[in-house]
Amino acid sequence: MNKVILLNKRPVGKPTSDDFKFTSEEMPIANDGELLLKTVYVSVDPYLRGRMNDSESYVPPFELNKPIQSGIIAEVMVSKKAGYKKGDFVSGNLEWKEYQVSNGKGLNRLEDDVSKLSKYLGVLGMTGITAYVGLTEIGLPKADETLVVSGAAGAVGTIVGQIGKIMGCRVIGITGSDEKVELLKSKFKFDDAINYKTCTDLRKAIKNACPKGVDIYFDNVGGVISDAVLANINKYARLPVCGAISLYNENKLPIGPRLQPLLLTKSATMRGFIVSDFADKFAIAVKQLTIWLNEGNITYTETIIEGFDSIPAAFIDLFDGKNEGKMIVKV
Amino acid sequence: MNKVILLNKRPVGKPTSDDFKFTSEEMPIANDGELLLKTVYVSVDPYLRGRMNDSESYVPPFELNKPIQSGIIAEVMVSKKAGYKKGDFVSGNLEWKEYQVSNGKGLNRLEDDVSKLSKYLGVLGMTGITAYVGLTEIGLPKADETLVVSGAAGAVGTIVGQIGKIMGCRVIGITGSDEKVELLKSKFKFDDAINYKTCTDLRKAIKNACPKGVDIYFDNVGGVISDAVLANINKYARLPVCGAISLYNENKLPIGPRLQPLLLTKSATMRGFIVSDFADKFAIAVKQLTIWLNEGNITYTETIIEGFDSIPAAFIDLFDGKNEGKMIVKV
Repeated sequence: MNKVILLNKRPVGKPTSDDFKFTSEEMPIANDGELLLKTVYVSVDPYLRGRMNDSESYVPPFELNKPIQSGIIAEVMVSKKAGYKKGDFVSGNLEWKEYQVSNGKGLNRLEDDVSKLSKYLGVLGMTGITAYVGLTEIGLPKADETLVVSGAAGAVGTIVGQIGKIMGCRVIGITGSDEKVELLKSKFKFDDAINYKTCTDLRKAIKNACPKGVDIYFDNVGGVISDAVLANINKYARLPVCGAISLYNENKLPIGPRLQPLLLTKSATMRGFIVSDFADKFAIAVKQLTIWLNEGNITYTETIIEGFDSIPAAFIDLFDGKNEGKMIVKV
Repeated sequence: MNKVILLNKRPVGKPTSDDFKFTSEEMPIANDGELLLKTVYVSVDPYLRGRMNDSESYVPPFELNKPIQSGIIAEVMVSKKAGYKKGDFVSGNLEWKEYQVSNGKGLNRLEDDVSKLSKYLGVLGMTGITAYVGLTEIGLPKADETLVVSGAAGAVGTIVGQIGKIMGCRVIGITGSDEKVELLKSKFKFDDAINYKTCTDLRKAIKNACPKGVDIYFDNVGGVISDAVLANINKYARLPVCGAISLYNENKLPIGPRLQPLLLTKSATMRGFIVSDFADKFAIAVKQLTIWLNEGNITYTETIIEGFDSIPAAFIDLFDGKNEGKMIVKV
């Protein structure tokens, strides 16, 4: 039998294990023109929370009692499709199933050691591309500018900060533990990092860390952390909004300072985006990220959880910041 | 003696006449290289409110017990500067004085009938240029898109709406009286207009007026009116923030819905600006506005108040929306 994870209920607030249902189905069979895929790595990402609500978000909502989908790397077990053979590895937006059949649409072939494949869900996948396009297309970094990144130790944040350093920026990360502060400064070469959980005056801490003010704020979190950064922006600041993880589990409309007067006074630009807005930049993003990775100019980290049954828990743990870098489940 | 208007106190909330002080000084005398100017038309504008606070805004704050400055058209009474002669008219950022001396720096020579000069404070001046650059550079209008303008019957709003029509947009105005609704639809050719003061459900009224959603929201007001428009934006909406008149007189930090989740879901861009951000576009803006005006493709309206002593009251009346189009004091 083939294990499957369905959306059992729409989460109210922070997701819980009850929102997911494990079930099993007959093992699927590949027909002509199809592939039988075995799931190897599953990406869990904060944006999936939005798809669990019954409201329009980036993409249509997940349906109740249907399998959840996310970025997955899978091995071809049976190929009845030209151009693929048993043992190939592919990535795509696939279902939370141990095995599934695909007609190949939307799949990317991966050629690398199996031990290195998980990076195609992170630094060389959606989150790395998100970091690249959000920073370069909206953040428009210039040498000697100051870049602040929230959710800095996450899959996107770690890459944003490193690209910022390559572009010559002073880079400050905001994160949720002292361990992550150290990681950002040592492994990811951030100029400074702030633990928002232990900081008594975040606004002032950012001011101190950014003596020349904030030119770019790459926002992964929203909420009061962002309020503190925005209080420190410079004239002509660019504010890519990549995520709002601090608000995804709110049941009421989140309220905060009105932004228009600030954007007006600072001639600042705040722009929300999703990686697919920049589909025409994917090829250049992957090419550039690959070069930097091979040259050792960027690095990455992953939090790898073992076992298909751990997928919901790994997803839920994102909202407590239990990941460093990309959160991945190895099946 | 020469009448002068000083900033007497920094307004708390809505400005009152006590915030201004009339005084008089010796009649100034032009020395070599200088002009003696007689004030003819004075522009009063909402943005001046920001300069009355003791905090950084677009430009440095006005000083207490010093003359207020705004856009002024003046007649040259005495010229001791090459290139100017008695009877010339000039515009510039000048002081609220009946007469003043200038070395000519920052002045523009105007060549037109004196009865038509006021338009160089409006449609062919700062407010017209603001409308042009904000809409064309940030709003990026395309044919068949829907443009909503708040503060629609004001100096900027009336021009924004008409440029939107020239660009092929469906144009909806939000304003504060039934008379202004009629003015927008008849004189300014808006497709529809909404009186926010009598509308019981503004969000729904905007939805009804914009069946294809809102692609561009040119925001002059901020606050709850903007909340209602933003609830109706489309994917990839552009949101130029030109003013926030509904918030200028707030004494506390205004609070409202957090915008990041909306901007994220809609891949929308909100950008604050001041006309001087686009100084390189001024010449093309004036050229294009002049062509449209001469061809009859745009028109304008002015609320002209008589008398130097009326300047503070005309300014205060802006916050009650007593103007249609550009508010000007004729001295």
